[in-house]
Amino acid sequence: MSIQVTFHALSDPTRRAILSLLQSGPLNAQQIVDRFDITNATVSHHLSILKKAGLIIDDKQGKYIYYELNTSVLDEIIGWFSSLTGKKEEQNEK
Amino acid sequence: MSIQVTFHALSDPTRRAILSLLQSGPLNAQQIVDRFDITNATVSHHLSILKKAGLIIDDKQGKYIYYELNTSVLDEIIGWFSSLTGKKEEQNEK
Repeated sequence: MSIQVTFHALSDPTRRAILSLLQSGPLNAQQIVDRFDITNATVSHHLSILKKAGLIIDDKQGKYIYYELNTSVLDEIIGWFSSLTGKKEEQNEK
Repeated sequence: MSIQVTFHALSDPTRRAILSLLQSGPLNAQQIVDRFDITNATVSHHLSILKKAGLIIDDKQGKYIYYELNTSVLDEIIGWFSSLTGKKEEQNEK
């Protein structure tokens, strides 16, 4: 997975909104559909792109697949930006 | 300027390399060209996209235009990612 794919995934506002939604914890596809005025197919498409980009991971629990933020990839991205602004050390302290 | 434009700008590896190069301080277009095996025109194109994306700002000094990282936009992006991973407070403490 490349950072190029990751940034492409992040360029879409609905996908960023899905990530923000997952901030409070894992959700299944239907729970995500319920929060947006878009179809199941569209949500599935966005989830697939976010997953390929490494931004979310899925976890099958019984008959549902739950999606959650991939914090290790998000931390890597934060690290990259922080290194640009010279805040790498502060970031790594936590 | 939208975050969509910003993430699109970040999806290109050369543009990310230019940002990394500017980490150590402002450079003019020729200095950036000298570091990469690409033409002046290509560097100008990438600088234009980075500028439109708000990631860099330019500063005319005599006959040269110097480009530098726009740390306020980079901090905003870090803040967005940090809020996803629940590290907003830690980030804001610095």
